[in-house]
Amino acid sequence: MLAVFGHLNPDTDAITAALVYAHLLTRQGVQAQAYRLGELNFETAFVLREAGMQAPALLPELPAGTAVALVDHNESAQSAPNLSELNVTRVVDHHKLGDLTTTQPPYLRFEPVGCTGTILLKLHREAGLEVDVLDARLMLSAILSDTLHFRSPTTTADDQDAVAFLAPVAGIEDVETYALAMFAAKSDLGDTPAETLLRMDYKVFPFGHPGAPQQWGIGVIETTNPAYVFGRQAELLRAMDAVKAEDGLNGVLLSVVDILNGTNRTLVLSATEEKVLREAFGASAGEQVADLGARISRKKQIVPALEEYFNQA
Amino acid sequence: MLAVFGHLNPDTDAITAALVYAHLLTRQGVQAQAYRLGELNFETAFVLREAGMQAPALLPELPAGTAVALVDHNESAQSAPNLSELNVTRVVDHHKLGDLTTTQPPYLRFEPVGCTGTILLKLHREAGLEVDVLDARLMLSAILSDTLHFRSPTTTADDQDAVAFLAPVAGIEDVETYALAMFAAKSDLGDTPAETLLRMDYKVFPFGHPGAPQQWGIGVIETTNPAYVFGRQAELLRAMDAVKAEDGLNGVLLSVVDILNGTNRTLVLSATEEKVLREAFGASAGEQVADLGARISRKKQIVPALEEYFNQA
Repeated sequence: MLAVFGHLNPDTDAITAALVYAHLLTRQGVQAQAYRLGELNFETAFVLREAGMQAPALLPELPAGTAVALVDHNESAQSAPNLSELNVTRVVDHHKLGDLTTTQPPYLRFEPVGCTGTILLKLHREAGLEVDVLDARLMLSAILSDTLHFRSPTTTADDQDAVAFLAPVAGIEDVETYALAMFAAKSDLGDTPAETLLRMDYKVFPFGHPGAPQQWGIGVIETTNPAYVFGRQAELLRAMDAVKAEDGLNGVLLSVVDILNGTNRTLVLSATEEKVLREAFGASAGEQVADLGARISRKKQIVPALEEYFNQA
Repeated sequence: MLAVFGHLNPDTDAITAALVYAHLLTRQGVQAQAYRLGELNFETAFVLREAGMQAPALLPELPAGTAVALVDHNESAQSAPNLSELNVTRVVDHHKLGDLTTTQPPYLRFEPVGCTGTILLKLHREAGLEVDVLDARLMLSAILSDTLHFRSPTTTADDQDAVAFLAPVAGIEDVETYALAMFAAKSDLGDTPAETLLRMDYKVFPFGHPGAPQQWGIGVIETTNPAYVFGRQAELLRAMDAVKAEDGLNGVLLSVVDILNGTNRTLVLSATEEKVLREAFGASAGEQVADLGARISRKKQIVPALEEYFNQA
């Protein structure tokens, strides 16, 4: 039984891609089971609830050598803790290729598109398999989530084509209304503890030369209600400080993305982060908030700039 | 213009995959040019001559940041010398994933099949593109070469399906006769210098723990006429000794694969290689030749066993 899972701090794409790919593989004769590597965020919980589906189980500790399939990630820092001991036989992803290696020739399918769901739809169509209504709903939700319904600069024509194909199959007539409901669910953060908010969509990235390695944690809160988040700024800064110490990081950033206006204001923990934001983005911080303008994609606009900055440092 | 190339010491798959993939990309609107990373072997020269095609040009030194596509390889030790400075945007391969990383999300298409040509045929069919007669001939030749016309344990059902599809498109009625002609061309080694024979199908592999890294050079001569090769055993051993010193390697192996009988007898340079062959394969050497039995696939039967051996050492 192949274990299929997305990244730590799963988002809608990580969860739905595991479900859809496991189902696709099973239809193709490869017994596969979807898992998750953390709690659902509010958006993903909404998507599954609306679809009437259960969340996948938490990934148990897998014995060394277990065959696994990764979706929506490939770097060890974002994966199962013992990934280096597991046998990665398949990866479907839309991120840059990191430190993954395999011991045998794998199935790899990477495309520079906005969402793993877009690639999964291609796999169905290439295999001549009909897309069922639940899979269509999951892939559609993932694409709307990852591209912020085409507002993100990561959006490609393939993502737009996929949504046009999937919406009628999923039985979703008004895609924008459904997307706004997803974003509202994501933004309804209630009394979620600050550290949970920080870690909800959070990844650790290695930067710099091998001789001077740096580890930075970068969280993103995509919300239709940024005022709520900034109302909890002091709490969030304390949580960032604690996580930085606990995980031995060089820096921690938390970007608050205003989905509807397409802007990014990032919380600035200390002079270390302020210096990097200023030198990498020309962003100056006032009251521990740096205005990163329209840089709303961590993958396409934040991480590449930091990589270049630390490689030159 | 995207530069497309296969591995150093190119074989028929490395050369034809570069030609076919560059042509496919160009048909899809991505301007691409095929290159080679070394001299053609006699089999590849035969294939191109029979098809009435020119060999691709030698890869020039590319400026840092140039966009490139890799076919039939992904490890830096088998690629352009400045690969780490180039921008790898696409890889089509059927080997294990090595030390490749990318700075942006790439197109990756890896499948555990016998030949890159098999994957390239799928790309044509998925794109709904007709395969032209020359591309069909190139892909067919590559599959026959890499799988030794299905004699190799690397052969999959997909490779066999691809040959069944391609042979009529290529206008090749008797596939076994064509394959034997390819193998005869490959075996007609004439007065090729011993070091050229060693390096004709030769790859350097990293083995062992990061703390105790080893570099081994492994050459293969697939031939229908092993007696010719063993007639030049003394010369070949001298060439192996020179290459080992020149390239600072821990060991050098040269496997002589008898294509028609499906057997592998490997030249044994020194006690270092003899110990490893004995402990990894249980093969004892007499007169500087170790009998490796039916282990005719370097990728599937030699390298994995050596990896396991050095990881445990």
